[in-house]
Amino acid sequence: MARPTPLSGFPELLPAQRTVEQHVLDVVRRTFELHGFAGIETRAVEPVEQLLSKGETSKEIYLLSRLQEDEDGARTDRDKQLGLHFDLTVPFARYVLENAGHLAFPFRRYQIQKVWRGERPQEGRFREFTQADIDVVGQGELPYHFEVELPLVMAEALGALREIGVPPVRILVNNRKVAEGFYRGLGLDDVDAVLRAIDKLDKIGPEAVAELLVADAGASPAQARACLALAAISGEDRTVVDRVRALAVEHDAGTELLETGLTELGALIDAAGRRAPGVVVADLKIARGLDYYTGSVYETVLVGHERLGSICSGGRYDTLASDGTNTYPGVGLSIGVSRLVARLLGAGLVSASRSVPSAVVVAVLDEEHRSASDDVAQQLRARGIPVEVSPNAARLGKQIRYADRRGVPFVWFPAGLDTDGNPVGHQVKDIRSGEQVEADPAAWLPPAEDLWPTVRPA
Amino acid sequence: MARPTPLSGFPELLPAQRTVEQHVLDVVRRTFELHGFAGIETRAVEPVEQLLSKGETSKEIYLLSRLQEDEDGARTDRDKQLGLHFDLTVPFARYVLENAGHLAFPFRRYQIQKVWRGERPQEGRFREFTQADIDVVGQGELPYHFEVELPLVMAEALGALREIGVPPVRILVNNRKVAEGFYRGLGLDDVDAVLRAIDKLDKIGPEAVAELLVADAGASPAQARACLALAAISGEDRTVVDRVRALAVEHDAGTELLETGLTELGALIDAAGRRAPGVVVADLKIARGLDYYTGSVYETVLVGHERLGSICSGGRYDTLASDGTNTYPGVGLSIGVSRLVARLLGAGLVSASRSVPSAVVVAVLDEEHRSASDDVAQQLRARGIPVEVSPNAARLGKQIRYADRRGVPFVWFPAGLDTDGNPVGHQVKDIRSGEQVEADPAAWLPPAEDLWPTVRPA
Repeated sequence: MARPTPLSGFPELLPAQRTVEQHVLDVVRRTFELHGFAGIETRAVEPVEQLLSKGETSKEIYLLSRLQEDEDGARTDRDKQLGLHFDLTVPFARYVLENAGHLAFPFRRYQIQKVWRGERPQEGRFREFTQADIDVVGQGELPYHFEVELPLVMAEALGALREIGVPPVRILVNNRKVAEGFYRGLGLDDVDAVLRAIDKLDKIGPEAVAELLVADAGASPAQARACLALAAISGEDRTVVDRVRALAVEHDAGTELLETGLTELGALIDAAGRRAPGVVVADLKIARGLDYYTGSVYETVLVGHERLGSICSGGRYDTLASDGTNTYPGVGLSIGVSRLVARLLGAGLVSASRSVPSAVVVAVLDEEHRSASDDVAQQLRARGIPVEVSPNAARLGKQIRYADRRGVPFVWFPAGLDTDGNPVGHQVKDIRSGEQVEADPAAWLPPAEDLWPTVRPA
Repeated sequence: MARPTPLSGFPELLPAQRTVEQHVLDVVRRTFELHGFAGIETRAVEPVEQLLSKGETSKEIYLLSRLQEDEDGARTDRDKQLGLHFDLTVPFARYVLENAGHLAFPFRRYQIQKVWRGERPQEGRFREFTQADIDVVGQGELPYHFEVELPLVMAEALGALREIGVPPVRILVNNRKVAEGFYRGLGLDDVDAVLRAIDKLDKIGPEAVAELLVADAGASPAQARACLALAAISGEDRTVVDRVRALAVEHDAGTELLETGLTELGALIDAAGRRAPGVVVADLKIARGLDYYTGSVYETVLVGHERLGSICSGGRYDTLASDGTNTYPGVGLSIGVSRLVARLLGAGLVSASRSVPSAVVVAVLDEEHRSASDDVAQQLRARGIPVEVSPNAARLGKQIRYADRRGVPFVWFPAGLDTDGNPVGHQVKDIRSGEQVEADPAAWLPPAEDLWPTVRPA
């Protein structure tokens, strides 16, 4: 076969790059588990009609058919047709309903899986990518404090990646109740139209947004100015709440909702200021997702890489799922792992110290004595040292080069006879310094920082 | 939405079950890494014509189409159409060709991913399942010793699962060269026809196989008897080699090949007898895959669960991939993780000690003081203890029940005031024994066996 070429939108990583991604996944998984989230996986497919119930992504769904049925000319009925999931929220909601009798609520879960979207690939936007989600879902009710807790778990997970060279993050938060209460207080009842206009602020600027508010949301010029003034508010402390309140119009239609929202937003900012200072920022112009989220909404930017878009988004749903008997409210966030890792690698921010796990290559003096090298390797592995044995008994310079090409720091020379036939003990060479010392395969340990590949600022 | 029902062939696990699967994956990954295999992932999709080049699975492929193109009525050209991969070998071969210039050979990789097959679901056979593969691929050449090494790595990975309750395994090995050399020595040149007949031995018995050999492979009754005699040979030591040799007919057409095969098989049995006594068994009736493998072939059964079929199979390809300039021989094995885990859970062999990671639930005395509980949790997590905070400030009995329902062993009561208003220090309760002691959140540690959920014989 001729050399294949990559498929656009389906990124693959070389081994050293995958080491970086695996490290990111290991760190976020550990953080999630330290916070008591249970890991689950859901199947990759859902019935198409369930995927379509979240309208905005309908065009991006990959449908499945079996080659066999395709050749028979028989098309599957749409209502039985399967598609690949495009996020982990829709399958999670279905999993909760399907297994509600076997789960304990509130149910805290993390889920790290691939998702697929048939959209046009571009920077940071793939057709296949990995997400790492946390959600808490309640049965009937879900207290607000989870809306404070979850972004702080993500702040910790992303903060734990700082030491490998991941830039700091800002988690931008807003609250549907604040926005809706404020707009209704102004007398604007088509809240979604206002949100759609505000969502365009970064793209088209305040003047064009003001025109949209007048044209599409039925706002007067003064109401439009008030909406823009709200969107201009951002900050890391409680004064944000005061600034919104100072701007708001007291009005039966919105005041109570606004006050509830401001209490929630204030609690989040307070807690974030204590637990993750400088990370969480209230940003009242965040409108993405406020059409389906019902409380807090979150977006996360990498500082210095704001144009990449959000790397961790989510929010609160009063009705994540419902089965007629029970309603399941939920709150969660999702890290776009592929987008994050592609930037870390593409911008040269992070790298792995070697392309293989091995800390040691055990040399083979001649093929007759390969089992002596296998014995050394097994002794080292028994003490947790990753080791491979040289693929051949080439001259030692070539075997050292085998290790060097992979970044393996040590080459082990098993006990044997020197060129004069005199016995020589085990020796291990640090091929970076050239230092070679006698060593006991039952006792020797590499320096801790050499034991496994390290992932670090490039 | 009404309560959804499971999709046949797409198994999903509850949190405690997933803890078992995750543990299995962690153990095999660690074993692979200790042996110097680098982890990679490949995309889930391949061009259909590449998937079809491995003919036997053509009917099982899931094709992809985008909802949008489907609605336009435009069908994608077959030559550009994508399908979900049905194993990890085809994508790995493509990855090797695509990235040959960036890889160091021999290249040792592991790959743990989902695969999809549109076949009829039955016990141990799914439409979506997880495989854990190791392969070594060379450029131009690949010495035989890798055919000895790889099944022993799998023996170690599966052996490391013994302590959680996984039954012992037998890795059954055969060698294409032995079979082909033996048959050609007998004068039977339609080797694949012989293998197809022998492959039916377990299903239809020796007499029916003898008839097939006569009818389809052109064998005389005496030749058929010799083939069955070869298939009856099995054993864990070198006498297997002698028994085959005693049975073989010296014949120019086969002797050299047979001798090469017997040398290889003997080396594998010798090494296995030293490193994994009792695990590797030469079984000359193994014929599955001998039509495409060119050297060693492996199948693995769980002792006591032989009817489940192989849980870890593979073999040697002289041409895993080829790009016109170079040929890439490879050898590898694949663990059917989903099949293995489904049996472990279904037969009640293995279970997890709890359904959540948390070792501790920190009680909340009243919502006003939730942040005091958050502080305790953060101090414990900082020392690597998985902790969650109670979802509410219900009476303590209810909070203890919250922990108990999830199998969390400890409940922490933060310092506060007792009912008489006197200060009380931090206390932690082992809810299994009822023992409650004063504790310092900056120093307390749970017993090591309680720190993380354990996976153990059920």
